[in-house]
Order: sequence, then structure tokens, then C-alpha cells
Amino acid sequence: MSDLKLPSRSEDFSEWYNQLVLRAELADYAPVRGCMIVRPYGWALWENITAALDRRFKATGHVNAAFPLLIPKSFIEREKSHVEGFAPELAVVTIGGGEKLEEPLVIRPTSETIIGHAYAKWIQSYRDLPVLINQWNSVVRWELRTKLFLRTLEFFWQEGHTAHATAEEGEAETRQMLDIYADMAVRDAAIPVIPGRKSDSEKFAGADITYAIEAMMGDGKALQAGTSHNLGQNFAKAFEIRYLDKNGQLQFCWTTSWGLSTRFIGAIIMVHGDDQGLIMPPRLAPFQVVLVPIFKSDEEKTPVMEAARKIRSELVAADIRVKMDEREGFSPGFKFNDWEMRGVPLRIELGPKDVAKGSAVLARRDRPGKEGKSFVPQAGIADAVSKLLAEIQQALYDRALKTRESNTFEPKDYGEFKTAVERGFARSHWCGSADCEAKIKADTKATMRCIPLEQSGGDGKCIFCGQAAKDKAIFARAY
Amino acid sequence: MSDLKLPSRSEDFSEWYNQLVLRAELADYAPVRGCMIVRPYGWALWENITAALDRRFKATGHVNAAFPLLIPKSFIEREKSHVEGFAPELAVVTIGGGEKLEEPLVIRPTSETIIGHAYAKWIQSYRDLPVLINQWNSVVRWELRTKLFLRTLEFFWQEGHTAHATAEEGEAETRQMLDIYADMAVRDAAIPVIPGRKSDSEKFAGADITYAIEAMMGDGKALQAGTSHNLGQNFAKAFEIRYLDKNGQLQFCWTTSWGLSTRFIGAIIMVHGDDQGLIMPPRLAPFQVVLVPIFKSDEEKTPVMEAARKIRSELVAADIRVKMDEREGFSPGFKFNDWEMRGVPLRIELGPKDVAKGSAVLARRDRPGKEGKSFVPQAGIADAVSKLLAEIQQALYDRALKTRESNTFEPKDYGEFKTAVERGFARSHWCGSADCEAKIKADTKATMRCIPLEQSGGDGKCIFCGQAAKDKAIFARAY
Repeated sequence: MSDLKLPSRSEDFSEWYNQLVLRAELADYAPVRGCMIVRPYGWALWENITAALDRRFKATGHVNAAFPLLIPKSFIEREKSHVEGFAPELAVVTIGGGEKLEEPLVIRPTSETIIGHAYAKWIQSYRDLPVLINQWNSVVRWELRTKLFLRTLEFFWQEGHTAHATAEEGEAETRQMLDIYADMAVRDAAIPVIPGRKSDSEKFAGADITYAIEAMMGDGKALQAGTSHNLGQNFAKAFEIRYLDKNGQLQFCWTTSWGLSTRFIGAIIMVHGDDQGLIMPPRLAPFQVVLVPIFKSDEEKTPVMEAARKIRSELVAADIRVKMDEREGFSPGFKFNDWEMRGVPLRIELGPKDVAKGSAVLARRDRPGKEGKSFVPQAGIADAVSKLLAEIQQALYDRALKTRESNTFEPKDYGEFKTAVERGFARSHWCGSADCEAKIKADTKATMRCIPLEQSGGDGKCIFCGQAAKDKAIFARAY
Repeated sequence: MSDLKLPSRSEDFSEWYNQLVLRAELADYAPVRGCMIVRPYGWALWENITAALDRRFKATGHVNAAFPLLIPKSFIEREKSHVEGFAPELAVVTIGGGEKLEEPLVIRPTSETIIGHAYAKWIQSYRDLPVLINQWNSVVRWELRTKLFLRTLEFFWQEGHTAHATAEEGEAETRQMLDIYADMAVRDAAIPVIPGRKSDSEKFAGADITYAIEAMMGDGKALQAGTSHNLGQNFAKAFEIRYLDKNGQLQFCWTTSWGLSTRFIGAIIMVHGDDQGLIMPPRLAPFQVVLVPIFKSDEEKTPVMEAARKIRSELVAADIRVKMDEREGFSPGFKFNDWEMRGVPLRIELGPKDVAKGSAVLARRDRPGKEGKSFVPQAGIADAVSKLLAEIQQALYDRALKTRESNTFEPKDYGEFKTAVERGFARSHWCGSADCEAKIKADTKATMRCIPLEQSGGDGKCIFCGQAAKDKAIFARAY
């Protein structure tokens, strides 16, 4: 909360982001390097993301549970690629209750192993399948370079873990959850995403296939905003998750896992924010409307506050999340700036003249100045506000999509490709070889973000090596 | 899920409890000693407890946030009694990212220290007060003797942490949160509780005063079901949580903390359960109603399922949480037993004869056999079910209160006292000395549970030493 301006988004995107997170009071640095405190305003946003996903999970038959934080170190070592991926990032508990532990325990970096162990015990027969469990928790990965929300030692997420009788069901579940992430991103966060498949070098340690939704941030870089993994029978074999089929034969299960984390808050900030601060998509905003009563004397205060309370009641009755800013000793201008920093999508200004006319001023956060202001009657204000919030939601999506489209390129050759990934996404044919992928990365810092599920344009030649290529892939620098 | 009967509650309460938790699929043992997995059915109950508390917290101005799991070990050592209480129970991380840490980190056993550190940074002026933050998370305490839900190495809870300008506000907050716990216990969990003050030997490590709600379990033992601590200025001084008052003077804040954990699930089981299994209080039950369609042929199946689906729709429309048991290959009797074990408060049986008559059978979980059955018309069934659920809720509370009252004694002398605490609670005058308290405990295994806030009967003489005593206290053996 401060009158100081943010650094310009176009001039120093990284510092703009860091300061915005602190000054909108979304999060703060913790005393342990790389850890964060998610402050109440940031957590309220996360609660809304949580609710938006949780209802989709439950509508598709998933249930929540809680598995322990502490995992025997030996568990991590049972699946070969899993240990390679996670061993370097572990936080290890060696002392408990004042004594050295016989076997060190790790704080979960993800829970495939301990859940696999439980599923092996719980699943006996085809009647027990599918098992569709999700958990909301935090995990710890010892990251070296950290940034609030985007990469922290501890982060908050949900991790879904399912077990199925057939490969087909496992793949269908993996894709269903990818669709759910994309739907939440588009509808609730107003973020256009590209659902696609990861390369072998970028997939989850222990997965057969990793799918992800990729979004373009305000600086043209990519951010992986949610992932869904088809784990094949890798964990089923490592943890002996088996079932008796209808013929009495013992079969290994097919498992999946999928997660979306507080990183997603970083995406919301970097897609929608501007030089004045954050812009919250209305459907996820902790406060959709801030109501600022304006008066200079006690005489003015009485009628203004009376009208303000009436408006607040009507908005609450219409299920609109409204905050009335009644703080004393702060000017209206200070309050406007403060709530613009925090990204409340719609402001209602209410002064003595408005009250006299029976109207109020609505100011859109996404359109600064006069262009974004409208005058509405106090009667029926809830309807006007609802309609405007829906318009803002759509406008944010449209703007983000336009930004992505105008910064996505189809380079004709590798020269154009190099220019493209300095500005945004390059959509190019890729032969699929890890070698080309690695060379492109070394050369341009751009990684293969995903092979979009939606393809168009048919076969072509690899942008790097010129060999035959079936699919186009998205390349970009990434968070 | 099994046809085997539970051990008898009256003959082996402890083993009855252990098996019930496993067989109702509320929780399971984790591979790490003393840790638990909360299974989906248990977690659904916890989600309902969470919602019941969270709406009360928010209605009283609290907001949620998330503070890190990892705390520098030195933080724990800053408040003298806090470190004495928690040092022996810590889980210590000594290795991160493959390297030995310079300063060991502990997994939070509770978060006063790390939150105190943040509050010192965030709070500057009286304008910033009060700060009213809660978090839902898990904590780790290295317990030696564990039991599912009641005492586990890792447990799930909420911890509220507030900071205030004055001692009076701190005390008012502490008492308000105690009231909220009591209200949730009584109204939602149908558990009568005694709100009261803890003795110095039983209070939270670092608190000036600890209040708790105490409940009587089915075996007459006590369980502390929620605690609220007035921390005075102890943590404010240890972490320098200060504010500038209206006169520009720097003052230490007054802080509180309060928590309720998955232990509370243990209380629900031990207060309401019977030899057939769990009995869920309707307001918190994951499923309030189980609907069992009964048929022997495809001919019977069609009309029964049609009527069953209609009933389900009507219950869903009335916001009743209903589960239809459509499992094939299981007899109605097996299904009845299974849902009785899981404690669904009301069962609807629907067979061909019921369909022909346009009626259905309602069977109350809290009243076994014919006594608990009623026949209702299918038309308007949602109203009948709602009414019955409210009756069951009240009946569970009344029964629990009666059990507590008939097992609470006012012994005339220490001889009667010793008999009393073998059966239930002893309400006796106590002089307040730690010495009497310790001798009673050594002698009878009963501890001073609380000095109830509601006192009656005036002054008297200490049940142990005969000295003058102002208050009566509750003594009992406890979980």
C-alpha cells in the first residue's frame, strides 16, 4: 500500500512483477530462502481458483483426501526416472524428536510414491477401480533460483492421482483433466491457453506422456500453467498396484497424476496486469467491486453512507463480492490508486452529487480514464454491475488472446525463428528429435513448450534440421 | 468394507475405535510411523468441519493466508516457554538440495514464531490493527504414542493468529474464538462441550492463558476438542511486534492463537459411535442419506430405479447430501451394514412393494431396528427427510449430553473422587495449586481438564488438600 508508482511494465517486466506482488500484498518473502508467505489477498485469490477447480473435479467423480507430508527416502528411489528427476531437489529430515532417524524422510516433492504405496494396499479387484483422488496441499522442491509464485521452495497446489483398469481409461483421464485446466483458465482466469504434449526432455519424471496448458505472459514468454501426466504402468510396477480382473487374472493398474499450483497466480498477474498494478479477472477476483463513498463533511457523510450501504446490500444480495472502503484519513485518490494496484475489476464512486441525482459512477479497471467510466442509476445497480463484470471478463480474455496472436509467429526459416522467440511464440515444424530441441535451446534459450493438440497445415520440414516433420510445435522462452 | 463385526464398544473401547476408523475408511496408517492417511470419506467429514468453522471465522472478520512449512530452528528458541514445550517434538531438516544446511530448519509444530516474524514486519501503526489471520494446514510434532486422528506425528488443523492494540481486545478475541469452537461443536457436531480455562501445567507453551472446550467420550474419558490462547505480549516481545499508537508511542502488540484439528474427528467417532460403527451428525455428514434401491429382477429394477432417481433429484434439489448405492453384486443387507458402519444418519429403502404403494422406508441410524423405521409417501419426501435429519441431529446431542451428565459426579471426598474419575468426570473444588494437581494425576491418572467458565455453588474446599478453593474444576482421565 503506497503512493509510489510501479516500475514500467514494458521497461522492466521482471521488477514490475516483483514489486506488484509485494505492493498488492499478494505475497511476501519468508525468512527461509526461496519460501513465500501468501498474504490474505493472494490467498483469497487462490481460494477462488481452488473452488473453480474443486467443483470441476467433483463433478467428474473425484474425491479429496490427505496423504502425509513425510515420505521414506527409499520410496523416491523405486521408480528410476522419478528419482533422477527429484533426488537433487529434496529436503531431507534426518532428526525427529531429538534423535537421528534410522531412515531419512523427505518432505514430499510430489506424492506419486506414497500414494502408489497406499493404492497397492487399497486396490484388490476391478470393482475397486477407478480410484479418483485429489489432494490440496503444499510440496517442497529445493529450487536455486526463485521468484514469488513462479518458483518457490515450497509451493501450494493440488495433485490428483488416479488408477485405472486399462491404458485407454488412463489416457482418457489424463486428457479430461487437461481439458478441465484449460476450461478453468479460459472461463475463470480469462487466460487463453494452448493444450499440448511435452517433449521427452520436458516431461514429468516418471511419466509416459505429459500434457500441459501453455500461456503467453505479457512479455511474450511462455508459462506452463498446469500439467497432466499419463504415468502408464511405471508407478504401478514400482509399487505393485495390481488388481484382479474379471477373469481372475492379476493385472497392473494404469495411473495418472495432474497438478496446478500457485504458479497460476503468477500467470494471472503477468497476463492481465498493467503499469497501475494488477487486474483481476472478475470471476476469480477476491473483491469484484470496490465501493468508495466520497464526502468532505459530516453533513455530506450521512446521505452518502446511507446510499452506499444500500448499494452494498444489493450487490451482496446478488452474490457480487463487494468491498466498501470506509477507511478514514485517506483521500479518494489514494483509495483509487490502492485498489487499482490490487486489481479490483470495478470501482463504484459515490459522492454527494451522485446521491442527489440517484446515480453512481462505475469505473472499469481495464480501461483507464474517462473511457472506462459510466454513470448508472442506483436503482437496479446490481444488474448493471453484473453485466459490466461479464463484459470485463470477456474483454480481458479478448485482449490476452489478441496479444498472444500478434506475438505468435510462423517463421519461414531458422533466422526468422530466432527473431520470433525474442518477441513471443514461434509455431514451427519440428522433427521430434531431442538433439534439435537441445541445440535450439542452447542457441536461442527457447524451449519446446508443447506440440499443440490442435494441428493445422499438415506435414512440413523441421525448422532446425530440415528433416521431415509431422507436427508443428510451440517454441518460446519460458518461466 | 467388510461383513465382520466390530469389537464391542463397551468391552474394548480402544480396539473398537481403531477398527472402526479403518473399516469405515476414514483413515489408514501411513508407511512412516505415527503418520496417517486421511481417506476420502474422512476428508469429506473434515471438509464439512472446515466449512462450518471457516464461515464463522469469516463472519467475525478473519481472513485466511498461508505461511511456510519450514521455520529456522533459531525462531523456535526465541520465546522461552515455547522452546521448552516444542523442542523435544521437532522434525528437523538438515539437508536441502543435496547439501547440508547452514542452519537447520524445522517443520512447523505450530506457527506463532514465523507468523510473529511476519507481523513484526507488517504492523507499523494502530491503523494496521487488529490483524486477524487464520490458516488451514498441517503441522508435525514427533509424538511417541500415536492413535489415528487423536495423536499423530502430522495432523491437520487450522491455526488462527491475531494481533491487537490492547490486552482487553486480545482477551476478547481469545474468548470469541472459544465461543465459536463451542458453537460449532454443539450445533454442527452435536457434541456438548465445557468451555473453560486450563491450568498452568496444561496451557500452551508460550501462552498467558489457555482456554479449551472439553468433551466427554463414550468411555467417560475427556478429550480437549479445541483451544484458544491468550499469548499476552510474550511473542510480541520475542519477535518485536510493535505499533505506533495514536500518540506516536511505540507499543508492543497483544497476540492470540487458536486451533482445532482432525482430533475433532476422533471426538465425533467416540461420542456418537456404537457397536455397528460410526454415527455421523447430519449437519457434518458427508452423506446425510443413503438411498438403497432393492430389486430381484430386471422387471422389478426398472420401476424401482425410476422412483429412486426421482427421490434422489428431489433430495439434491433440497440441498440434502444423498448417495445412491447402485453397486451390483451386493445384497441389500450387506449395503445396510456397510452404510451403518460409515454412519450415514438416514437410510431410504426402496423396493417394488414400496414403489407400488408410492411410499419409501426411512431408517434412522441412531435407532436400530423397527423403532427407527418409518414409512413415508414419496411425494414430499424431501421435507420429511429434512425434518427427520434435524430430529436426529437433536437426538444425538441429547443423548451425548445425557451420557455426560450421568457420568459427571460431584464427589464429597477424595475417596469418591477416585471412583468418579474411573467412570467419568469429577467436578470438584480445587485450590489451584500445581502440587495438588500433580499428586492427583500421579494417584489417579486424572488431569485437571478445565476450570469451567460457568461456575455454580460458590466457594469450597480443595478435594485433595482441603484448603480454601474458589472454583470448581473438571478432573478426568483424558485422551
